[in-house]
Amino acid sequence: MDDFTVTPWKVEGVIDYDRLVERFGVRRMTGDVRARLARAAGGSHHLIDRGIFFSHRDLDAILKTAEGGGRFFMYTGRGPSGTTHIGHLVPWILARWLQERFGATVYFQLTDDEKFFAKPGLTLEEAGGHALDNALDFAALGFDPDRTRIMIDTRDIAALYPIAARVAKKITFSSTKATFGFTGETNIGMIFYTALQSAPCFIEDAPVLIPLGVDQDPHFRLTRDVAPVLGKPKPALIHSMMMPGLGGGGGKMSSSGDDAILLSDDPRTVEKKIKKRAFSGGRTDVAEHRRLGGDPDVDVSFQYLRFLFEPDDSKLERLREEYASGRMLTGELKQILIEKANGFLEEHRARREEIRPDLGSYMFG
Amino acid sequence: MDDFTVTPWKVEGVIDYDRLVERFGVRRMTGDVRARLARAAGGSHHLIDRGIFFSHRDLDAILKTAEGGGRFFMYTGRGPSGTTHIGHLVPWILARWLQERFGATVYFQLTDDEKFFAKPGLTLEEAGGHALDNALDFAALGFDPDRTRIMIDTRDIAALYPIAARVAKKITFSSTKATFGFTGETNIGMIFYTALQSAPCFIEDAPVLIPLGVDQDPHFRLTRDVAPVLGKPKPALIHSMMMPGLGGGGGKMSSSGDDAILLSDDPRTVEKKIKKRAFSGGRTDVAEHRRLGGDPDVDVSFQYLRFLFEPDDSKLERLREEYASGRMLTGELKQILIEKANGFLEEHRARREEIRPDLGSYMFG
Repeated sequence: MDDFTVTPWKVEGVIDYDRLVERFGVRRMTGDVRARLARAAGGSHHLIDRGIFFSHRDLDAILKTAEGGGRFFMYTGRGPSGTTHIGHLVPWILARWLQERFGATVYFQLTDDEKFFAKPGLTLEEAGGHALDNALDFAALGFDPDRTRIMIDTRDIAALYPIAARVAKKITFSSTKATFGFTGETNIGMIFYTALQSAPCFIEDAPVLIPLGVDQDPHFRLTRDVAPVLGKPKPALIHSMMMPGLGGGGGKMSSSGDDAILLSDDPRTVEKKIKKRAFSGGRTDVAEHRRLGGDPDVDVSFQYLRFLFEPDDSKLERLREEYASGRMLTGELKQILIEKANGFLEEHRARREEIRPDLGSYMFG
Repeated sequence: MDDFTVTPWKVEGVIDYDRLVERFGVRRMTGDVRARLARAAGGSHHLIDRGIFFSHRDLDAILKTAEGGGRFFMYTGRGPSGTTHIGHLVPWILARWLQERFGATVYFQLTDDEKFFAKPGLTLEEAGGHALDNALDFAALGFDPDRTRIMIDTRDIAALYPIAARVAKKITFSSTKATFGFTGETNIGMIFYTALQSAPCFIEDAPVLIPLGVDQDPHFRLTRDVAPVLGKPKPALIHSMMMPGLGGGGGKMSSSGDDAILLSDDPRTVEKKIKKRAFSGGRTDVAEHRRLGGDPDVDVSFQYLRFLFEPDDSKLERLREEYASGRMLTGELKQILIEKANGFLEEHRARREEIRPDLGSYMFG
């Protein structure tokens, strides 16, 4: 049964999303809820349409609020352990689109303390440095500075701690043990930390929607248990699948090593990484590939196009057909990804530099 | 063996201070160290001379610093669960005297979060209200506003949290379990909190001396284990005995109920409390008392005079002799205490009102 693990600090094995839905007790994004979201948003997004956001908790409640002309806000975040990689972007891109469609304020929490607690060799200063760098990546996606509040835990702790304290009083060590697998050897910063990740849920007096990687869901199970005790609505969640690393498989892109494409990777590095490392869904030789076709569902290049770099559904469908039929080779698919990814990254880096002087206007504090 | 308990949250049974010294592994205040402190301070204090500050950790290191002309700072605090009582004053009065003698800066931490975590029915707002009221009691003892920094945890968390995080990373749940008796049912705010109580120890780049009630020692055992890992000197401690409640015994004055004399008690209330409740070391009738004498060591009125209200050693000695010889009755001793205590409290309340407009100048934030 336990051939895969999904927690905020460890994703291992090949995730079976159907079984994860059961295990976590979340709800599948059905055609109905997707259509309802598209109606309320006045349009759709490929991350929703393609099932990359595959499950939710109480999204219906948020849609009901929006349909009735009510206000909700959003919250997402990142543990700043290093340079942002493309896998981190998935919930952020959806958050940006939702902000544009619903005019919702977005809180972005950079959890420098969490990464400091979790990584033995990381200093708080290093985590803080990564946080500012990551903040720039987030803002550069095109958020509206008037509706964006980027928080860094240690820097914005004055606003977060009193809320976290109210949450922490209602969570026992046993609950964190059951939820995260903590032991007697877990440090007390780590044990408390989940209360801080809950805090932005209650920072405004309105319902909150959290777009997030499904590995972060356990934190908010605790938050959702506590919310009614605090007289607050339960935060709603919309969960994305984990974007695979270059090595493929059903896991999560790792920040360390060569498994990730970093937002700072130059075009040559991107080309080399994809050519050398991107797991191929192709056959052992060209003749066999032409005859049997490739498997886009396991091909990492295709998956990156599907997650991020080919938002046009008809173009993506054409690539799928070409590749599955064997007319397109892995090398050709990789070349398309290299160009699209480098185009995206160069534009992103230009936008980063453009907004760098104004980063302050996106910050909470 | 375990016929008494001393932890930051529970003091029970009759404390045997000799056994406590062994159990906690602290060092007795010897005549030598008292003389050395008096030399360095250019004078002595009744709380030291009378053995009320009975033990220490590394006080010698602080004295060495002072003797060499080096700088140290001080830190003490209070959990603001309600109105200050006279028992709370013991470490504060020593801190004030040490400040005057050594020109040392004093940090005073009001742990509103701790009390909130520890008391099921207390709100954070209530704890914060008590904190401001307690701050006024502290400042009114005559501290130098230029060398006093009163902190309230939730209010000054921006300065405290990054230090607490560094401490928290080095403390496991097992350590807090062993030190405080925490269980799986302990809330995660409480578990983390000890890191916050440690934080002021490292707020300045100098050695720190902490005058405190001995029940708070367990927190700083953890802090002292962590200090070398952070490259910091271990905090030095000087421990006071617990001032008994009106009911006597060898325990600690309780904030709740009728066991305490509150700083806000009016003269009539003080008189009534002492007359009705102060445990008497006297005999069952006057004739027997005259013949056998009273026992000043268990008489609460005598103890309050000894701890706080009769700083003149020769006057206190005369009272001891009069009472022990049977020449003085409990009622007469109580009358002396009532007058001294009411004099002290009236002066204190006048001073509170006098400095109220300037409280800001004592605050850290």
